[in-house]
Amino acid sequence: YETFAAEGRVRRATGIVSTICDDRGEEPTYGGVAISDLMAAERGIGDAISLLWFKRDLPRWATRFIELVLVLCADHGPCVSGAHNTIVAARAGKDLVSCVASGLLTIGPRFGGAIDGAAQVFLDAHDRGLEPDEFVADMKRRGLRIPGIGHRIKSADNMDQRVKARNLVLNVDGAVANAFLDLWASSSSFGREEIKEMTQIGYLNGLFVVARSIGLVGHSLDQMRLKQPLYRHPWDDTAYYCE
Amino acid sequence: YETFAAEGRVRRATGIVSTICDDRGEEPTYGGVAISDLMAAERGIGDAISLLWFKRDLPRWATRFIELVLVLCADHGPCVSGAHNTIVAARAGKDLVSCVASGLLTIGPRFGGAIDGAAQVFLDAHDRGLEPDEFVADMKRRGLRIPGIGHRIKSADNMDQRVKARNLVLNVDGAVANAFLDLWASSSSFGREEIKEMTQIGYLNGLFVVARSIGLVGHSLDQMRLKQPLYRHPWDDTAYYCE
Amino acid sequence: YETFAAEGRVRRATGIVSTICDDRGEEPTYGGVAISDLMAAERGIGDAISLLWFKRDLPRWATRFIELVLVLCADHGPCVSGAHNTIVAARAGKDLVSCVASGLLTIGPRFGGAIDGAAQVFLDAHDRGLEPDEFVADMKRRGLRIPGIGHRIKSADNMDQRVKARNLVLNVDGAVANAFLDLWASSSSFGREEIKEMTQIGYLNGLFVVARSIGLVGHSLDQMRLKQPLYRHPWDDTAYYCE
Amino acid sequence: YETFAAEGRVRRATGIVSTICDDRGEEPTYGGVAISDLMAAERGIGDAISLLWFKRDLPRWATRFIELVLVLCADHGPCVSGAHNTIVAARAGKDLVSCVASGLLTIGPRFGGAIDGAAQVFLDAHDRGLEPDEFVADMKRRGLRIPGIGHRIKSADNMDQRVKARNLVLNVDGAVANAFLDLWASSSSFGREEIKEMTQIGYLNGLFVVARSIGLVGHSLDQMRLKQPLYRHPWDDTAYYCE
Ligand SMILES: CC(C)(COP(=O)(O)OP(=O)(O)OC[C@H]1O[C@@H](n2cnc3c(N)ncnc32)[C@H](O)[C@@H]1OP(=O)(O)O)[C@@H](O)C(=O)NCCC(=O)NCCS
Ligand SMILES: CC(C)(COP(=O)(O)OP(=O)(O)OC[C@H]1O[C@@H](n2cnc3c(N)ncnc32)[C@H](O)[C@@H]1OP(=O)(O)O)[C@@H](O)C(=O)NCCC(=O)NCCS
Ligand SMILES: CC(C)(COP(=O)(O)OP(=O)(O)OC[C@H]1O[C@@H](n2cnc3c(N)ncnc32)[C@H](O)[C@@H]1OP(=O)(O)O)[C@@H](O)C(=O)NCCC(=O)NCCS
Ligand SMILES: CC(C)(COP(=O)(O)OP(=O)(O)OC[C@H]1O[C@@H](n2cnc3c(N)ncnc32)[C@H](O)[C@@H]1OP(=O)(O)O)[C@@H](O)C(=O)NCCC(=O)NCCS
Repeated sequence: YETFAAEGRVRRATGIVSTICDDRGEEPTYGGVAISDLMAAERGIGDAISLLWFKRDLPRWATRFIELVLVLCADHGPCVSGAHNTIVAARAGKDLVSCVASGLLTIGPRFGGAIDGAAQVFLDAHDRGLEPDEFVADMKRRGLRIPGIGHRIKSADNMDQRVKARNLVLNVDGAVANAFLDLWASSSSFGREEIKEMTQIGYLNGLFVVARSIGLVGHSLDQMRLKQPLYRHPWDDTAYYCE
Repeated sequence: YETFAAEGRVRRATGIVSTICDDRGEEPTYGGVAISDLMAAERGIGDAISLLWFKRDLPRWATRFIELVLVLCADHGPCVSGAHNTIVAARAGKDLVSCVASGLLTIGPRFGGAIDGAAQVFLDAHDRGLEPDEFVADMKRRGLRIPGIGHRIKSADNMDQRVKARNLVLNVDGAVANAFLDLWASSSSFGREEIKEMTQIGYLNGLFVVARSIGLVGHSLDQMRLKQPLYRHPWDDTAYYCE
Repeated sequence: YETFAAEGRVRRATGIVSTICDDRGEEPTYGGVAISDLMAAERGIGDAISLLWFKRDLPRWATRFIELVLVLCADHGPCVSGAHNTIVAARAGKDLVSCVASGLLTIGPRFGGAIDGAAQVFLDAHDRGLEPDEFVADMKRRGLRIPGIGHRIKSADNMDQRVKARNLVLNVDGAVANAFLDLWASSSSFGREEIKEMTQIGYLNGLFVVARSIGLVGHSLDQMRLKQPLYRHPWDDTAYYCE
Repeated sequence: YETFAAEGRVRRATGIVSTICDDRGEEPTYGGVAISDLMAAERGIGDAISLLWFKRDLPRWATRFIELVLVLCADHGPCVSGAHNTIVAARAGKDLVSCVASGLLTIGPRFGGAIDGAAQVFLDAHDRGLEPDEFVADMKRRGLRIPGIGHRIKSADNMDQRVKARNLVLNVDGAVANAFLDLWASSSSFGREEIKEMTQIGYLNGLFVVARSIGLVGHSLDQMRLKQPLYRHPWDDTAYYCE
């Protein structure tokens, strides 16, 4: 018995703790709600995310907003880092999951992964009561780029329909961050500290990851269907500085 | 000019061909439909997938079915291969995208990636007019496992609510494969050869990848929030056969 | 006690079995040899691989050959699929491990991952006593590409120094496969069935994975040092066929 | 001509810059040295890394040290995060590259990826002339963990043979960081700023990535050879806190 107890302690120490989905019963539950109940009630992906990530049964307008973000970010063409790496992997004859993973691994500070960073600085600026130009001046003084601002190819002259800004081009990451801060503020069930923690952990970038996985799967299937050959980057587009 | 033309030819040969999303205009289009039109018409993720992958504006019942599959497959708890690897990576202090990728890379023939395989054998059996027991006998004779049948822990005694079977336990992969074959058959816009090609390329496994990315993001966020320490698999659960 | 025993059984069934490296003692052993003994004896990476993968203390000429293969395959420039994806990820501001993983995931049938396939067909042709042109004719008749033959840019006119062939251009994968079959044949300690099994499992592609990880780390560090900005594939190199 | 020039500008802006390996000639060169010259001169992996990463033809004692680090870090058993995720992926029936990538993605601040961090703090402490206990006190005051110190299972009572420390257990990351700082200092060809930059970019973690890829390939091959079934983490080792 002692051995058993000792072992029990060891196992407790190294075991897994998990709080999002309970699969011990007849069917898994998402945040306490059985999948079949979700399906019977005609609930959608916004509800599943809301239960699994936010552990809350958010109202329809909020879950619908989550779904809009997923649609908006599902794909932005074959030229961006994520789609490009997925396409190169697909043309190397790799399986779907490898292609998607190769593309996902480019999501980060410069591509798709600035949503939480943007939410953090916007929230902080709001809390400190900064006016927009004070905020910009402050970031400049600290030598920091404003996450959620800037786009590799869009400029103020060639402005994206979806985002509006006078002298700074808000990119998708910034727009989603802004809208989500409003959502959290409008829903009475999130505390200030919890909101801050979620942006530090990266909840909003999680939405981009799920959304863009739709596009990356799409690009893999597309290249496979088109039977595209092995990609090799052209030599004449490469500058070699090797001694 | 000649140089230019020559170069033009080179570039055409090594360039990218893509057919799912056009990002050259003011805003990206999914299969020809502008994102803002999709959003204005209150369309959802099923529509985005249908336009990006299937290049068709499928009817509501079909896009709704796609969304149901995503909800059904979003997560099945922390113990399965994908969630487990994501949890271990999160506990190693890794960023969200790395955690999700580490888990996704376990999706394959034994976990989540048997949907297209199941669709292929079911379709083939149907085309050859085989009765269920003839089909099973045929697979047995050829020494092949039936994809979509079997589950690491469910048994006929402890049967999952969602799937019903007399003597074989159809798993989620098998159930989704079956339902999708019906969807394709009911929608007049898919030809037989195209359906076969899609199952060979892996369209249905793509749905599982997108769905489970929701759960994997959820598990990452969960572990980060819980500040779980580095995981180390217990020595006493490991058999070493090293000479 | 019964509970304990029952639990013991469960744990045995789900536990890990491992045979390459024992870390239970004061220091890990590779195939039974302590790391400090390896280091004291001035042994190298070829020895570590030989002990961990082949579970044998291979003679110096063989471990030295393994090291030569690693040097030969460490890098082949920035334009190939693996290096390219790593470079794109590095320019998206990602961490070293993500960049390397994004590149590694392109290794497969068309890039770096045809060594075992080549070894299999060469071994089989040798066993069946086929002459080179009979072998080529046989593969052609069966509509199969010969793994280890062909290169995206090298042609017979512009032949690589390292490989020689009259009318077929043997690529690196093919050359390594050939040499390794000789190594296995020369070393009396590998049986025919074991050799076949190793090529089916993918031991030789494993060498390429380790070797190229050197180059992929190198490309990541290079891009970071050069502070290269976000990569976006040029629109005018992309053909869009979206309706 | 104007069009051409305009296009030229575009392409220059989006093109690739690379400095480690030139593959335009008859055969690739590593930092200017042809592969066949390396092989003819019986050079090893330490030389390849030294040329590709450090762009220098380091002396034999230095390249030999690099090789020792690779041997030392090649594998530390099946229970650590990296090996564990690779094993789980292999048991899910995945290909070699996916298994290795799934494991590599766990390398980070808590597992294998603290070498550069350790080098940074050690270098800084040395520059500021801090005594060991002043250094420890300083880190404690700032509430920071000392990278390179601590091990999930080793304690001062059960001290690893390879590392020696009186009251703090230096882990492998810390030991390698220390030794590499000595190497850089002993070699006259590295400037202080360059050393600092290399630890910020992550050169030393790169060594761990290459080294451990040997072990991860080994674990994949091992599980495939042993034909291990799908892994599922035991329910009774999991604590569910779902409402
Ligand atoms: C998106 C982004 C990577 C595009 O970068 P890019 O087109 O390669 O732009 P560059 O890095 O060449 O920057 C051009 C100039 O604009 C400045 N700039 C770019 N983004 C800026 C920002 N967000 N805040 C302040 N200045 C910025 C740069 O410092 C640079 O100025 P300089 O020439 O004086 O050095 C960049 O704008 C950025 O980092 N934005 C913040 C992060 C973000 O939102 N990422 C998610 C995008 S989906
Ligand atoms: C899901 C799966 C991996 C679970 O495997 P498992 O619980 O580890 O089962 P085992 O591999 O130990 O198999 C137990 C027995 O059932 C048999 N079996 C398992 N699945 C089978 C199938 N789909 N068809 C026929 N026989 C099957 C095995 O051959 C074995 O028989 P044996 O003991 O005579 O050798 C397995 O059932 C399978 O491979 N199914 C097909 C692929 C699939 O649907 N995968 C997706 C699951 S989400
Ligand atoms: C390496 C490889 C992907 C390069 O492909 P590529 O330059 O894109 O060549 P393509 O696919 O355009 O093929 C050109 C022609 O050569 C043929 N060909 C290419 N490789 C062949 C091979 N290994 N055996 C037989 N025929 C081959 C193709 O069928 C095609 O013929 P077609 O025009 O009549 O259809 C290709 O040669 C190949 O698949 N080789 C075998 C796998 C291999 O060794 N991969 C590892 C490379 S490191
Ligand atoms: C390696 C490591 C993750 C092991 O962690 P662990 O065994 O899970 O240890 P815990 O996180 O439970 O820490 C136990 C205690 O030691 C302290 N501790 C652990 N490592 C420490 C370090 N490097 N410096 C200072 N204190 C440390 C913790 O703060 C904790 O103290 P507390 O109980 O008062 O909060 C951890 O020691 C660490 O983060 N080290 C620094 C990074 C590093 O070297 N990583 C590479 C390892 S290969």
